Amino acid sequence: MKQKVAVLGTGSWGLALAQTLVENGHEVILWGRDVSQVTELNEYHTNKAYLPEIVFPDTLKATTSMGDAVKDADAVLFVVPTKAIRDVARQFVEVVHTQPVIIHASKGFEQETHLRISEILAEEIPETKRKDIVVLSGPSHAEEVAVHDLTTITAASKNEDYAEYVQELFSNGYFRVYTNDDVIGVETGAALKNIIALGAGAIHGLGLGDNAKAAIMTRGLAEITRLGVAMGADPLTFIGLSGFGDLIVTCTSIHSRNWRTGDMLGKGKSLDEILSSMGMIVEGVSTTKSAYELAQQLEVEMPITEAIYQVLYENKDVNYVIKEMMLRDSKSEKEFDK
Amino acid sequence: MKQKVAVLGTGSWGLALAQTLVENGHEVILWGRDVSQVTELNEYHTNKAYLPEIVFPDTLKATTSMGDAVKDADAVLFVVPTKAIRDVARQFVEVVHTQPVIIHASKGFEQETHLRISEILAEEIPETKRKDIVVLSGPSHAEEVAVHDLTTITAASKNEDYAEYVQELFSNGYFRVYTNDDVIGVETGAALKNIIALGAGAIHGLGLGDNAKAAIMTRGLAEITRLGVAMGADPLTFIGLSGFGDLIVTCTSIHSRNWRTGDMLGKGKSLDEILSSMGMIVEGVSTTKSAYELAQQLEVEMPITEAIYQVLYENKDVNYVIKEMMLRDSKSEKEFDK
Repeated sequence: MKQKVAVLGTGSWGLALAQTLVENGHEVILWGRDVSQVTELNEYHTNKAYLPEIVFPDTLKATTSMGDAVKDADAVLFVVPTKAIRDVARQFVEVVHTQPVIIHASKGFEQETHLRISEILAEEIPETKRKDIVVLSGPSHAEEVAVHDLTTITAASKNEDYAEYVQELFSNGYFRVYTNDDVIGVETGAALKNIIALGAGAIHGLGLGDNAKAAIMTRGLAEITRLGVAMGADPLTFIGLSGFGDLIVTCTSIHSRNWRTGDMLGKGKSLDEILSSMGMIVEGVSTTKSAYELAQQLEVEMPITEAIYQVLYENKDVNYVIKEMMLRDSKSEKEFDK
Repeated sequence: MKQKVAVLGTGSWGLALAQTLVENGHEVILWGRDVSQVTELNEYHTNKAYLPEIVFPDTLKATTSMGDAVKDADAVLFVVPTKAIRDVARQFVEVVHTQPVIIHASKGFEQETHLRISEILAEEIPETKRKDIVVLSGPSHAEEVAVHDLTTITAASKNEDYAEYVQELFSNGYFRVYTNDDVIGVETGAALKNIIALGAGAIHGLGLGDNAKAAIMTRGLAEITRLGVAMGADPLTFIGLSGFGDLIVTCTSIHSRNWRTGDMLGKGKSLDEILSSMGMIVEGVSTTKSAYELAQQLEVEMPITEAIYQVLYENKDVNYVIKEMMLRDSKSEKEFDK
């Protein structure tokens, strides 16, 4: 059934998801803060900054008015950087008059509080102004979704009905949505994999090979699973699309900002230098800080996260820190309880 | 403590492992059938066919005599193609007079019987002629190990003491060995990942992108975990080095013969054409047949394996079969019991 969906965020992922919804026959309004981007989309049906090759359907409209965007919405998709989630949720609450399904496709933890995205949304949006909160996450370059390359992704909710609602909303011949009931696992996997991407990039930047890349990804999956489990996730979720799958895409593709940041760190560039050349948010940088603090608080061993933290926040030498971390005493592979 | 180790097999992996053992101070003899390769190694300390860049330590000796190779051996490493394992084990039994630890680093199932490598070895080698059987497996291009690139790998045995013995035998500054007690999981992961590598190669050959690659690898890990669990493995082993880790190396590196075979299939070449151009055994081709038969016997759903089987053995169109498989009805991510 045709739904009205508000997509909050005009980054490449918001654009690609909005286009997918339009192509599935839904009525979609994009909301963004940037007047020039909104105007460009309405007048020329393009966004040269984020997806320069794409001409969007002319039925895809954009607005800078949150009230216009969420008016009569059946579903609202939050797809803004983690640090903007709480603020955007507050704006949403002020103007919403329906009780839409809340979907989010953001990846990270809130600084200081270490809250997951769905926890921030649940704090800010009273139950009278929403239905369930569903997480959409998986291995997906926006650039590929925008050109209809085959993509698989997870819709996670404790309530199966709403996961299936989101599955139906997005699924089509090139975009395959699987359901999952482990919201904590999907959110922590999505956020934490960016740390491992920084590490895999650094391994590459340091001149190490494919065996070392596979090693850091595997040990990385183990440590993000450990933290996820300590936070309440099901370990098996990490074998799925938002763990293993997203880790592959993020660690083995030069499209990934987190991987590119790590690569440049490995080659000896400073974080300031890298971030100013990137011009976009690199979620893994702040996620590393949150995960490092969470690991200490929950007493979880996370050697890769610790090494990346030392490089990013303590100005330690990347070559020394990464190699020392990789050469720690070997032990058993099985470290967390089933 | 210095050990005497016989390495049976002079392929690239046998050579790289033998070199690692020599560098760790052990006495190592390589056994091979090919007189010219054995002579080349003894006279020039090279193997131009498999590792053309490497000059091996001159303490690494080779022989075509199984009796000479295994004389006084503390450990014997089998690293020959799956289809040769039973025959080489029989030759070994005829001449061995000690009771060595048996290690193997081969990947596959026996055709017809569908036995794992350690099961074949246990059938052929009476307990009076061996100690425990330990599997050595993980993400490791021989080319990288041979030049001391950082590599991590798993040594699996039901008996922790022997897993730790193998760990100690091989571990050094560039080669990190983790122990594991799940022999079935490590062996099935190692064998089955080659099927997924064929699929990931085919995805690439068909012109699909990184999202689709991540999708087939993730769905692939799920299906090899399903079969592994049906065969008695612990599902969590598949998140480790011999599952996830090896899958990464095999599916994202052009060094992999299985991936290259899939890539050429995707580009429309015939299997005969590919195998004759390769000149080396592609284990995934026969593993696909075994896994297809095992899946039917154990009633496990393996859509990727089935698709690859149809391409390899039923001459079905690769484009049609792979795309149809990828577009099956979406459902829940969690499919196997914990």
